[in-house]
Amino acid sequence: MRALALDIGGTHIGCGLVEDNRLLAETSVESEGASSLASLLPVLTEALRRLLREAGTTADQCDGLAIGYPGIVDARDNKIHSTLKKYEDAPDIDLTAWVFESFGLPLRIENDARLALLGEQYAGAGRGISDVVMMTLGTGIGSATILGGRILRGVHAHAGCLGGHLTAKFDGRLCHCGNIGCAEAEASGWSMPLTAREWPDFQNSSLANVDKLGFRELFTHAEAGDAVALAVRDRCIHVWSANAVSLIHAYDPEIVILGGGAMKSGAIIVPAMQDYINRHTWSSWGKAQVRTAELGNSAALLGAVPLLLEEIPAAPAQLR
Amino acid sequence: MRALALDIGGTHIGCGLVEDNRLLAETSVESEGASSLASLLPVLTEALRRLLREAGTTADQCDGLAIGYPGIVDARDNKIHSTLKKYEDAPDIDLTAWVFESFGLPLRIENDARLALLGEQYAGAGRGISDVVMMTLGTGIGSATILGGRILRGVHAHAGCLGGHLTAKFDGRLCHCGNIGCAEAEASGWSMPLTAREWPDFQNSSLANVDKLGFRELFTHAEAGDAVALAVRDRCIHVWSANAVSLIHAYDPEIVILGGGAMKSGAIIVPAMQDYINRHTWSSWGKAQVRTAELGNSAALLGAVPLLLEEIPAAPAQLR
Repeated sequence: MRALALDIGGTHIGCGLVEDNRLLAETSVESEGASSLASLLPVLTEALRRLLREAGTTADQCDGLAIGYPGIVDARDNKIHSTLKKYEDAPDIDLTAWVFESFGLPLRIENDARLALLGEQYAGAGRGISDVVMMTLGTGIGSATILGGRILRGVHAHAGCLGGHLTAKFDGRLCHCGNIGCAEAEASGWSMPLTAREWPDFQNSSLANVDKLGFRELFTHAEAGDAVALAVRDRCIHVWSANAVSLIHAYDPEIVILGGGAMKSGAIIVPAMQDYINRHTWSSWGKAQVRTAELGNSAALLGAVPLLLEEIPAAPAQLR
Repeated sequence: MRALALDIGGTHIGCGLVEDNRLLAETSVESEGASSLASLLPVLTEALRRLLREAGTTADQCDGLAIGYPGIVDARDNKIHSTLKKYEDAPDIDLTAWVFESFGLPLRIENDARLALLGEQYAGAGRGISDVVMMTLGTGIGSATILGGRILRGVHAHAGCLGGHLTAKFDGRLCHCGNIGCAEAEASGWSMPLTAREWPDFQNSSLANVDKLGFRELFTHAEAGDAVALAVRDRCIHVWSANAVSLIHAYDPEIVILGGGAMKSGAIIVPAMQDYINRHTWSSWGKAQVRTAELGNSAALLGAVPLLLEEIPAAPAQLR
């Protein structure tokens, strides 16, 4: 099967042409300054047409177009149910009509984390595994879940993709989502600097001189031996591990796939989280295995074919 | 449909004869001193035969026997995969043969919390709702989940029933299950007295004179105005609420059913948890509703008919 794919992000939009589990061509469109999704559609149409031309093919050689969108999205009714601050116009755009008019293709749209997990399970770290949880450790903490070989969606399309918003510390920090002490509010790209700055003796840490504190800087300063950086890094890994245990106890997966920007330090993160999971999950069979995502930014694009192939059950009444 | 049912607990075993959503007859067998499940089988056979006689019916008027067992159990292969300290002999007993030889009936066995939720969804607080999470606030914190009208089991039969072992405080107390800071380790019948005794000024609290501290005593002393009892009670409700938010974010249910011994104080617990959920869950549709379990100790017995009626999919390869 051949398909077009879009992975809509806040700062750029990935565009791909895929054939089964291979990426034939890929490009990226900047979206940082865009005020609406509608304003980007002509650019995206052009980018996808260029990919088709460069690969020496045409849209009528493709079977569909898949879109990954960062919000509450459900492939069962092909709708965006909720946006997350960016592209507020998206739910009102008739994307099905745009895709059909531009390419003569059917559209399927899904939450971007679910689409990325479909890609990893089809062509990456989850090949051949029927029960998988994915955690994306980046600016936020994203998640998606496949149970019994099927993407978990839930009755209002929330299930599986809010894993970063399970509580990690019930008396912790208020999260953007409204919950208190979510894993994301305790150890994500946006919350980690808040934790670091509140750390005792932060002023004497080498981190105090860092202009824009991200995971890259945190792990570098920890490696260099800074005590505060080490403590904050270990606290992040502890929170992620505790979150992984919650996800394993909730969903009973065979493996946990880790992706996202923090995984540049995967060599430290993966063994530490595996060790924590081995010591602290309850199990009657063995321990879920931690794996590094293999497809990077291409994961959602490579989710296009399994999403288009999926026999989609009717949407629950609540979504209609 | 008419069925026999057993709800196997640590201190007693509930025995029932049910017809559809009605309990025709019910009794209870003491099991506190029993060293093995095998030693109880003759007593259970007799108790069920007596129920049949008293109801003026016979086993051949029934369609099956359902057992709820407190451990990792899976109706897909009708096996007990893991016990929890009591009845260590249970996985090796051929219960299918016992039921057939004693009553000429087919057996289905399931985790007790899942069976109780099946009962509540069929005949109690969850009637007509397809997506339900149940929390049982007792000595431990039990849970079960129905998604899209089907009991969630997961590939190793762990899913849905370990909800009390999602992390609530990543740097909290070590749980019997091996995890750190589970909801159960922070606010259950066994862990609450540990929290109370560590509370500042516990020695001056009226709780210090309580011989055997349980939720009944905690809520009574809190009502009477004892400051430590109030603080510990509110902390328990906070932990349960944070756990409910995790379960809602994980499973996307319409309602959360609360059962267990602590619910004798449901008049205080339910509105407090509903308020927390309203303020702290993220949702694109509305807020999951908190409901009190309606069937008490009969819930698992009333789960017999829906369990026997369920079209059971083949067990995952991992369970065979």
